[in-house]
Amino acid sequence: MIEPTDIEKDFAATSRRQFLREGGALVGGAVIAGGLAGSEALAASESSGNLPPNVPEWMKTPGDPMGSQPYGTPSPFEKDVIKNIPKNLPQYLSASGRTPLQDLDGIITPNGLFYERHHGGVPMIDPAQHRLMLHGLVDRPLIFTMDDIRRFPSESRIHFLECSANPGYKKPYGKTASDLVGLLSCAEWTGVSLKLVLQEAGLQAGAKWIVAEGADAAALTRSISIEKCLDDAMLVYSQNGERLRPQQGYPLRLLLPGFEGNMSVKWLRRLRVAAEPIYSREETSKYTDLMPDGTAREFTFCMEAKSIITRPSGGQRLSAPGFLEISGVAWSGRGKIKRVDVSVDDGKSWQTAELQDPVLTRALTRFRLPWRWDGRPVVIQSRAIDETGYVQPMLAELLAVRGENYYYHNNAIWPWRIAADGELTNANA
Amino acid sequence: MIEPTDIEKDFAATSRRQFLREGGALVGGAVIAGGLAGSEALAASESSGNLPPNVPEWMKTPGDPMGSQPYGTPSPFEKDVIKNIPKNLPQYLSASGRTPLQDLDGIITPNGLFYERHHGGVPMIDPAQHRLMLHGLVDRPLIFTMDDIRRFPSESRIHFLECSANPGYKKPYGKTASDLVGLLSCAEWTGVSLKLVLQEAGLQAGAKWIVAEGADAAALTRSISIEKCLDDAMLVYSQNGERLRPQQGYPLRLLLPGFEGNMSVKWLRRLRVAAEPIYSREETSKYTDLMPDGTAREFTFCMEAKSIITRPSGGQRLSAPGFLEISGVAWSGRGKIKRVDVSVDDGKSWQTAELQDPVLTRALTRFRLPWRWDGRPVVIQSRAIDETGYVQPMLAELLAVRGENYYYHNNAIWPWRIAADGELTNANA
Repeated sequence: MIEPTDIEKDFAATSRRQFLREGGALVGGAVIAGGLAGSEALAASESSGNLPPNVPEWMKTPGDPMGSQPYGTPSPFEKDVIKNIPKNLPQYLSASGRTPLQDLDGIITPNGLFYERHHGGVPMIDPAQHRLMLHGLVDRPLIFTMDDIRRFPSESRIHFLECSANPGYKKPYGKTASDLVGLLSCAEWTGVSLKLVLQEAGLQAGAKWIVAEGADAAALTRSISIEKCLDDAMLVYSQNGERLRPQQGYPLRLLLPGFEGNMSVKWLRRLRVAAEPIYSREETSKYTDLMPDGTAREFTFCMEAKSIITRPSGGQRLSAPGFLEISGVAWSGRGKIKRVDVSVDDGKSWQTAELQDPVLTRALTRFRLPWRWDGRPVVIQSRAIDETGYVQPMLAELLAVRGENYYYHNNAIWPWRIAADGELTNANA
Repeated sequence: MIEPTDIEKDFAATSRRQFLREGGALVGGAVIAGGLAGSEALAASESSGNLPPNVPEWMKTPGDPMGSQPYGTPSPFEKDVIKNIPKNLPQYLSASGRTPLQDLDGIITPNGLFYERHHGGVPMIDPAQHRLMLHGLVDRPLIFTMDDIRRFPSESRIHFLECSANPGYKKPYGKTASDLVGLLSCAEWTGVSLKLVLQEAGLQAGAKWIVAEGADAAALTRSISIEKCLDDAMLVYSQNGERLRPQQGYPLRLLLPGFEGNMSVKWLRRLRVAAEPIYSREETSKYTDLMPDGTAREFTFCMEAKSIITRPSGGQRLSAPGFLEISGVAWSGRGKIKRVDVSVDDGKSWQTAELQDPVLTRALTRFRLPWRWDGRPVVIQSRAIDETGYVQPMLAELLAVRGENYYYHNNAIWPWRIAADGELTNANA
């Protein structure tokens, strides 16, 4: 049996001895070698050459007590991992805060970093006072308290949510993955099937649309096809386990999986069943697109298949040639992601990336490809293929069809240029 | 086409008119009827009778601007949904903060509410200074910076984590789901396969255990069987997308899916490959159990199948008879949950609950059963069956085998008693 005191002595002795014995090899870049697909050696970062402290300062005194954080927060060393909020925006009319995709792993977005987009600021709603009214072409108009909503059978599903202007089509687009497609997040949502609630009210003949209204100062209003309402639409009260944050619609929001984000009306106060859409500001002046022939595309609900490499990505820098993992996220409003291809030669050839299980419908899907960078300038990019067979297009292909006046639903492939010094930049800018 | 102004007028008129027309029926408890499995009618909460404000105060002025919360926090109305931290604990020796399971939905625990258990407080570690040393029975001892670790191929998986004393066997156990089994949470973890890292170092003959040490003031140390290290063990740096919180091991922790929580060593600084376990304090004085025959059970790694009803649960109160959903979580350290049974008649009969897809291995699984409470006193409880066929036992069965001196690994069925006034209490207390 080895005493705890022995291993302490052992650590002190070993770490110095091993460092001295292995130091040459470490500095020579052979910390890790072999076994990695596509790489002969994973170069050590230069900092590996530093002598590690045998007993760091933070082991010498007791750490912070628990009670100081009844609701936890990230490490102070992660203070720069925050929402990416454009300066000088008219906050009350068009506020946005983007998820820092390039700093995140996996598919779940933590609630503190979930993207935001508001048209009249964030209302601070007392859930005891909040009501949802369901009326129009129904047999029995109904008014629900939050307690009423909570008594319905519930369901939980992981889905992405994305703004339809993510990014727009106008240069310079942005520098980082967050600048480009940071109006994108993914969470586990819990709530009630909208279909179930509609069944309780009883839909009348001629019910073709549902007009949803939010309880914000903009009274944001959108028309939703009855087919979606009877498919996978949800009335959501919880996100990643806890109640919705005010920025995500507390205490109640609509969730329309795969549809453009603004239709998943936050702070939901009213559902009006109707024969026609309402043609609100958000489906006429905004969220429509002028085509080259002068017609406008309206009611462009679904977010098409898309992907982005988040690591490495714009604004980051590769410290040295050698092995690294290319990783990113793919998603489709049409269903599951079937495949993600990655090119590391400016689109000349494509390799199939590995998809992280479980691949869920209308959820972010993490993809990864091991790669060895040889230190030469190169362009890397990813393209998503969803279960319908749809292939994410190049930006030039989209522009050729949609013309100069298009703004929303830009799902183009987005390439990153790696310079000889390792710097990554937006290759479409 | 309906003008936005029309619908505003319509709302004001409709909400008053519909309330007046439907008010009698609402108060009579017929807001929602039919279609729900097992229920004829879902009674309206009394507050449904209140006239909803046509235009609530928070719609009359712009809401909060975005920039005020670059890292979001919950609504002030959720201020009581925090970690459940026992008072008067010796924080530096035995600190714990429980997840408020009864307030959560779905399977993901938000990072701010993830359970904590510390033996020497929470160290505040500078990731640039942190090192992981891998030594002992390996061909090449290695020292890793966080940058080195980040260059390995990564993976993301959703797993639960649970303390082995959750709860202990000594009465009074606790009042709420959080008091009883709140040292339990579930997250999406991202990191590196430990097997991959061990392959880089090269295991030598005789390598049977790995001794893991944390960089906290307790230098918490545990021995792990080499089989687990070569199976699904991970070196984790991210949790629910973002970097680990300090309370969960920032910047690096071990994750041993399905094993008792303390073995997933936080603030991981050392892995020593050995022929024997180290018999540290945490595997001799603590985390072992005295059996009735005087022998001690040690190295009780795996958390057996378990479940708990979280809604409704102890400390909550049913406002009225009628339809409600029984919901809870089930989990097993051995793999996937195969089935969850729920009894609403003090264990005389059991019904199969619905499991929320996707059912993942060694992750929380949300179960649900629609139910109509008739207003009479009753005891409700759940039991989990995992894919090995193991069935969660009754507390009396565990006590009969394990005796009076047992403390850890209490995976008993936990019943809730519902009184005639709707109050829920711990039926084992």
